[in-house]
Amino acid sequence: MDAISPTTAGKAEALALRYGADAVPAAGPWSDAIGLLLSHRSVRAYQPTALPCGTLETLVAAAQSAATSSNLQTWSVVSVTDPAARAKLAAIAGGQKHIEQCPLFLVWLADLSRLGRIAEAEGRTLEGLPYLETFLVASIDAALAAQNAVVAAESLGLSTVYIGALRNDVGAVAELLDLPPGAAGVFGLCVGYAEPAAAGEVKPRLPQDAVLHHGTYRIGEERAQRAAYDQAMGAFSRRNEMQADTWTERVLARIASIRALRGRDRLKPALRALGFPLQ
Amino acid sequence: MDAISPTTAGKAEALALRYGADAVPAAGPWSDAIGLLLSHRSVRAYQPTALPCGTLETLVAAAQSAATSSNLQTWSVVSVTDPAARAKLAAIAGGQKHIEQCPLFLVWLADLSRLGRIAEAEGRTLEGLPYLETFLVASIDAALAAQNAVVAAESLGLSTVYIGALRNDVGAVAELLDLPPGAAGVFGLCVGYAEPAAAGEVKPRLPQDAVLHHGTYRIGEERAQRAAYDQAMGAFSRRNEMQADTWTERVLARIASIRALRGRDRLKPALRALGFPLQ
Repeated sequence: MDAISPTTAGKAEALALRYGADAVPAAGPWSDAIGLLLSHRSVRAYQPTALPCGTLETLVAAAQSAATSSNLQTWSVVSVTDPAARAKLAAIAGGQKHIEQCPLFLVWLADLSRLGRIAEAEGRTLEGLPYLETFLVASIDAALAAQNAVVAAESLGLSTVYIGALRNDVGAVAELLDLPPGAAGVFGLCVGYAEPAAAGEVKPRLPQDAVLHHGTYRIGEERAQRAAYDQAMGAFSRRNEMQADTWTERVLARIASIRALRGRDRLKPALRALGFPLQ
Repeated sequence: MDAISPTTAGKAEALALRYGADAVPAAGPWSDAIGLLLSHRSVRAYQPTALPCGTLETLVAAAQSAATSSNLQTWSVVSVTDPAARAKLAAIAGGQKHIEQCPLFLVWLADLSRLGRIAEAEGRTLEGLPYLETFLVASIDAALAAQNAVVAAESLGLSTVYIGALRNDVGAVAELLDLPPGAAGVFGLCVGYAEPAAAGEVKPRLPQDAVLHHGTYRIGEERAQRAAYDQAMGAFSRRNEMQADTWTERVLARIASIRALRGRDRLKPALRALGFPLQ
């Protein structure tokens, strides 16, 4: 495969696309891999084209190469191909059709069940398993792994989108995938070739000053930054999504009401029912 | 910068190093970026050499380019340079000297405080903020962002190691970094040039069959896989760490007792005290 992905942009262009021309940070050293990372776009429409043989195994090798807390490897991944199962997952996620459409759909699991089986086989009790900390380790490790898979996929000219909405009903996902106690789907991932019209622009982010702090947390010019970003995101939305919501409006819509959580307000009891006491 | 990192390995070699020669998965397409991902090693000893100007900004640009749930951008990062603060963080982490030694140390925050400030400015209540779900979104997004920073750093010939042990005392970390309510350090990250003797070998992982499931979760040959992996990890430990612990022994030591959590059994009340009700 070629070292330079077709989506890799040069430094100045990549930074301007990610931050807007008025908010380019004083970035230093650069590499083709960094250009690839900067060019990321989440894609929600896929061509039916199958992936080259062995793509899944390549992505999982990349995923397993990510760091994992104390080498505990407390994650697993399920590749779902069955159309009926895909349809159920799409419904759980609130009707996201790209889950049915993409050639590869992965469900990433926080998986403490493997450690539970080791303890059983060794006749030991793992006192640390029931804690929120241990669930968090598993979820963070699943995220590090999945992000490596995303980078690997994009380096091959593939596109991706995370599906957090599987957490709308982690119990239904567990039943569908026949998960053992101590395993839960924390998010999904679509992988495939983007429909050309759906690749879209790189989405601008908040300026670096809004998220990067030096020594201690300082709020700084947050209101002015948000006003500028609202304007940039409104323009981005008009160009790409034919609606003109600002970032502030979207944040409020997503998080202002319990209803907007779409069932995820019940995540804690749902995880407990799957064998995560979250002590 | 050069497209091919000095640590990038070819496909066959990279897979054999990651899985052992007897457990190489049938990986397909490949790229230089994938070779880079496969070559990851966590490094715990750094040269004092300063990083090129703008490296921090480059890494944060990569981090901000990772996907973020509904574009909420619920993470922040603090770069800590003050030696006294570094020493305190190293002590919190149980005496990890590389936190004091590395030229760049980053604390990655699950940060819902920014959304809280938006709500306040707009005279709104964000009913979704107090939920475990929303803390999890922030933690996962911080992990996706940090992993992009890791990939970017490694593409520049730098090394890294995550510091989960900051969670030993999230309250002390928050005080040290002057975090507002609704922000918590979920892990740290050392970045720098590895001491040549400390770069070490690529650490083998469990075989793909142990973590990759097709359609539904099937446990399969887990005991035999673990026996083989215990042997591989024992040999790796002897070669690299002058002790011969198997993986099973390490897992049990890390998670068997509450004491081994080193304070992280109190993560839930500590997060609540920082403004995460975790409903």
